[in-house]
Amino acid sequence: MRIGILGGGQLGRMLAIAGHPLGMNFRVMDPAERCPCTSLAEHIAADYRDDAALDRFAHGLDVVTYEFENVPIEAVTRLATRVPVWPPPEALAVGQDRLREKTLFRDLGIATTRFAPASSLDELVAAVASIGTPCVVKTRRMGYDGKGQAVLPENADSNAIARVWRELAGDSRGSSNPLTTTADLIVEEFVPFDAEASVIAVRSRAGEVRAYPLVRNEHRSGILRHSRAPFHGWSGSAEIGAAGGIADRATESVADILERLSYVGVLAVEFFVHAGRLIANEIAPRVHNTGHWTIEGSACGQFENHLRAIGALPLGATAMRFPGASASMVNLVGGWPDPARILEEPTAHLHLYGKSPRPGRKVGHVTVVAGHAQIDRATRRVQDLADASWA
Amino acid sequence: MRIGILGGGQLGRMLAIAGHPLGMNFRVMDPAERCPCTSLAEHIAADYRDDAALDRFAHGLDVVTYEFENVPIEAVTRLATRVPVWPPPEALAVGQDRLREKTLFRDLGIATTRFAPASSLDELVAAVASIGTPCVVKTRRMGYDGKGQAVLPENADSNAIARVWRELAGDSRGSSNPLTTTADLIVEEFVPFDAEASVIAVRSRAGEVRAYPLVRNEHRSGILRHSRAPFHGWSGSAEIGAAGGIADRATESVADILERLSYVGVLAVEFFVHAGRLIANEIAPRVHNTGHWTIEGSACGQFENHLRAIGALPLGATAMRFPGASASMVNLVGGWPDPARILEEPTAHLHLYGKSPRPGRKVGHVTVVAGHAQIDRATRRVQDLADASWA
Repeated sequence: MRIGILGGGQLGRMLAIAGHPLGMNFRVMDPAERCPCTSLAEHIAADYRDDAALDRFAHGLDVVTYEFENVPIEAVTRLATRVPVWPPPEALAVGQDRLREKTLFRDLGIATTRFAPASSLDELVAAVASIGTPCVVKTRRMGYDGKGQAVLPENADSNAIARVWRELAGDSRGSSNPLTTTADLIVEEFVPFDAEASVIAVRSRAGEVRAYPLVRNEHRSGILRHSRAPFHGWSGSAEIGAAGGIADRATESVADILERLSYVGVLAVEFFVHAGRLIANEIAPRVHNTGHWTIEGSACGQFENHLRAIGALPLGATAMRFPGASASMVNLVGGWPDPARILEEPTAHLHLYGKSPRPGRKVGHVTVVAGHAQIDRATRRVQDLADASWA
Repeated sequence: MRIGILGGGQLGRMLAIAGHPLGMNFRVMDPAERCPCTSLAEHIAADYRDDAALDRFAHGLDVVTYEFENVPIEAVTRLATRVPVWPPPEALAVGQDRLREKTLFRDLGIATTRFAPASSLDELVAAVASIGTPCVVKTRRMGYDGKGQAVLPENADSNAIARVWRELAGDSRGSSNPLTTTADLIVEEFVPFDAEASVIAVRSRAGEVRAYPLVRNEHRSGILRHSRAPFHGWSGSAEIGAAGGIADRATESVADILERLSYVGVLAVEFFVHAGRLIANEIAPRVHNTGHWTIEGSACGQFENHLRAIGALPLGATAMRFPGASASMVNLVGGWPDPARILEEPTAHLHLYGKSPRPGRKVGHVTVVAGHAQIDRATRRVQDLADASWA
């Protein structure tokens, strides 16, 4: 089977690594001359808006998927006339727009933050008044890793609102006159939270849904630092009661979203956890950083399950690899420690993405799989090494 | 790290799949225009005796290894002057020659069959007389999958011996006059056996040795059909007592061989099991078909451990993936069943090698990992599918 992937980053790379054993071959399209997929796939280096390149890319493929959600909808729509594209372009459109995302949560009865859209400075002032402060103002599109958003503190005045408008509307449109600029923003209630969580699930072409255990996540400077499954409290943070209950609710929510979108492939949903309640924050219509632990932590990882789903194969098992297992994933950001130091930890699995070090860039990750009793010590050891090279 | 592999078959392919996550890149040399490694590595398509191609291959590599033991010694020796080659060329020379192999076993006090070399028809007659019948006559070199060998039954007469001489000496030298032909043959005692076993072990550049659990193997038409770890009796065959004891002896034997050869990388040793005793049969100085189950069955598979060893990284854990786990590997030979049928078995992991179907050709394998109580049923299901497509 010949699989096309829009985007040639680390997610595409891990798809290719998972797919070769299934007898799959890969072609990626990525504007960069070299990318993490280059040594594992045929690579068409072209812009996603280059129609001729898209046609060359599509030629002879059995199915197309994408590995990041900011790929232009027009590219996906064009490809979909020639070859099946999974997940469906509609899911990509929802995932690219925070307003549609939040509206989908609300329509499905999934608890989310209160929100209001704003396309002008006047609308922003009105939206802030309706949601109240503190609140978070975000661009509807193209935000990632904490970019394209700003917090308005309690009792923020009109100057503060205008400042945020200039900052984000400028981000969004490149214009400099705040009074005539229009921009697609969304104002969201500021949610204090005890923990962050995510659920990774997969839906097959036949409509079967399987979810991995709920994941607990921790960010640093807006970048994912650490994920752990199954979700439960860990030392140094407040214990979250009723973890089993929220895991069930997360699984129900992701199943509802998958059904509504007639989804095929892996989807991630991110939540805040506050006072034992889940508050849906966003979806990612693709394999997800908070699911990397599934490669070793479950019998069939998210990358293989995504490929099984889009390739019309039966889904794989999503339970933890063995009863009593825990898994943690530690991101390597900006640089990486000596691989020999990491691999001295007997439960550690190293993943480097073939990228050069650069501050703030995800260059690899380490997964630790161990029994509940051992996971803390092993994770701390890897975390100490990762922190020392964080840039 | 840039790794060169002599041979671009499925073993090289699985090395590349295991090594990319460690940040390694691969270059293979294989005479075929396309090979299973083509989509995962830079591929130099040239004969192993092409010195200019060997020099191009070596350029810029950090370390060279090989994935089949019939690569010419001259190629390895030439490469070793330019770049470290692991396992050491000496191990390759021993692995290529049944007489040196058996002599090594004997020198280390490892039980093996009685044997005698023969280079002419006269010597063959004398060797058969000294070993007795029934016995097995083999070419010293280039035998694999049951080729290059013949059995002399009890009381075989001189005509039968001459017939075997013509067959094997012809194989070995291409000459047609049996009286003037010379050939490198070995006569081995015929060993009745209750089971076949193998042990896969790895030695690091620092001299650390780790062995995987002992494997039980079953062949069909001279081709490996099925491996299972840890070694124990299974239904339909005679139970082998004292499996724990023979596992310990196998581990000691492989450790002695690794030390003697100053070995670095993964080595396999194959044994016959007769009346509760191990009888060493041959070594393979490389990753091995009977170790494929380690990819999912242990925390660090043979392919990753081979790369860790030759790349001067700490060795990974070789125990079963979780307490109470068993693993079986079923070879796909000549063709493969519908992948969807295989993946319906929730404990199955599919590996296709990107090769076209051809009778007798290994084109993939399936690994099942499950608790002792579930492994039989799951293995049978996969075995039934594999048998139906065996060609």
